[in-house]
Amino acid sequence: MEMTEQRDALIKEWLKEATKKIKESLKHDLEVEVKSSPNDLVTQMDRKIEKELVEKIKQHFPNDLIVSEEGFGDRVNNKDFEQKTVWFLDPIDGTLNFVLQNENYAVMLAVYEKGVGKQAYIYDVTHNKLYWGIKNKGVYCNEQRLPKMEDLPLAKGLFASNSMFLSNKQVSLNTEITKRAMGVRTLGSAGLEAVELVKGSTIAYVSYGLKPWDIAPGLVLIEESGGVVTQFDGTSVNILNIEPTIMATPTAQKEITELLQ
Amino acid sequence: MEMTEQRDALIKEWLKEATKKIKESLKHDLEVEVKSSPNDLVTQMDRKIEKELVEKIKQHFPNDLIVSEEGFGDRVNNKDFEQKTVWFLDPIDGTLNFVLQNENYAVMLAVYEKGVGKQAYIYDVTHNKLYWGIKNKGVYCNEQRLPKMEDLPLAKGLFASNSMFLSNKQVSLNTEITKRAMGVRTLGSAGLEAVELVKGSTIAYVSYGLKPWDIAPGLVLIEESGGVVTQFDGTSVNILNIEPTIMATPTAQKEITELLQ
Repeated sequence: MEMTEQRDALIKEWLKEATKKIKESLKHDLEVEVKSSPNDLVTQMDRKIEKELVEKIKQHFPNDLIVSEEGFGDRVNNKDFEQKTVWFLDPIDGTLNFVLQNENYAVMLAVYEKGVGKQAYIYDVTHNKLYWGIKNKGVYCNEQRLPKMEDLPLAKGLFASNSMFLSNKQVSLNTEITKRAMGVRTLGSAGLEAVELVKGSTIAYVSYGLKPWDIAPGLVLIEESGGVVTQFDGTSVNILNIEPTIMATPTAQKEITELLQ
Repeated sequence: MEMTEQRDALIKEWLKEATKKIKESLKHDLEVEVKSSPNDLVTQMDRKIEKELVEKIKQHFPNDLIVSEEGFGDRVNNKDFEQKTVWFLDPIDGTLNFVLQNENYAVMLAVYEKGVGKQAYIYDVTHNKLYWGIKNKGVYCNEQRLPKMEDLPLAKGLFASNSMFLSNKQVSLNTEITKRAMGVRTLGSAGLEAVELVKGSTIAYVSYGLKPWDIAPGLVLIEESGGVVTQFDGTSVNILNIEPTIMATPTAQKEITELLQ
């Protein structure tokens, strides 16, 4: 069995267990703590799920490194990333939604080998849908293969963004982009926004303030689906040091890069 | 049986039939037409569903008037609204989502007697959830009664808006409001945004460009849930001539009105 397939079977099993625990936790009160700011929250479930997944990865793949949100992973530098197998893990992406809405959040995992994204998993827990993909083998929702994304321009689709982008000071630019698109949508989860793109529900997602674990899984799925992920100036992203990012159809990405210059 | 209950039973039966047809239609190609602008769409399903519902209302309640999106209803003036029973009908709220995403849209109905909202229905078709309420009898999701909304300030919740608000020119104000809230969310359906409020998933929804059928059902559910619906200056809305609108918890509404002065 190829390494990607071996990992694939394990990851799906782990995610099934993790999402079951998360759903169960919503029947009780969540313990919520504030991290960097009043809007940056963490719950006991973020920590518990990350700890358990990190332990499982370490047990099965002791030579691999892990970049994760809540501190149970490793310190990974660019040299490690280029030479080793690195896992990216976000136990609950969209923690604000998890806490305030009890829905619209995802568990996310991605595996990169020597800097190349090999496979990714974004689990929409509320709707029991696992979006996953393996490089050169397609993108799936549960067992169903998704078609490649259509290369639509801004004028033919919905533009998604995050709160930091929509309430920042570069307003004239936002207005230009949002007016050219058919409408604006904002979910509050970078993972689920990447899913919207591969489903064809939106044609671009632009955001500030993403972290490696926010973007690593989406990047694999979007590229495998025919989309592109770049910095605002159109150059590639460095997953470990993320600058403001565009995820989009190739045509919409070009338009947005031009509008942001 | 009271009139509201008699209508309630019929409306639920009609909505069941209508949503079944809408779901069925998604298995085939939709016929899409442009209305006032490239982003104002209508499908054959909007028209078909509205026509059928209007016929059913007219058959059972021949003396009532209907205000509806696609033109099968009546012309209703303020005098009629104050003196008669008026139905508000939006066959598919969130048509852009319906066409581009095949999800995140709603079928909506509300009944007002002599200017007072008596009952309202917002059917989230994708998730098979009917949000409904009867004045003084509570708000429900399917068979489950929802608790009253908590009166939270902006700083304790998510702020929702629509594309027209987020990409308009009053940007400094938007920025002030969006920064004070924990985050921004945008679904693209006024009906589902009202549902987010009564569920407690957001604490305010501010928008331009709503029509009577967009707001009439949400207003009933939000008021019954303990929230308020006002114009930007804090005064009541006139359902038939809607100005930019705030739907929110009482505290968030006061904050937004102050920030918009």
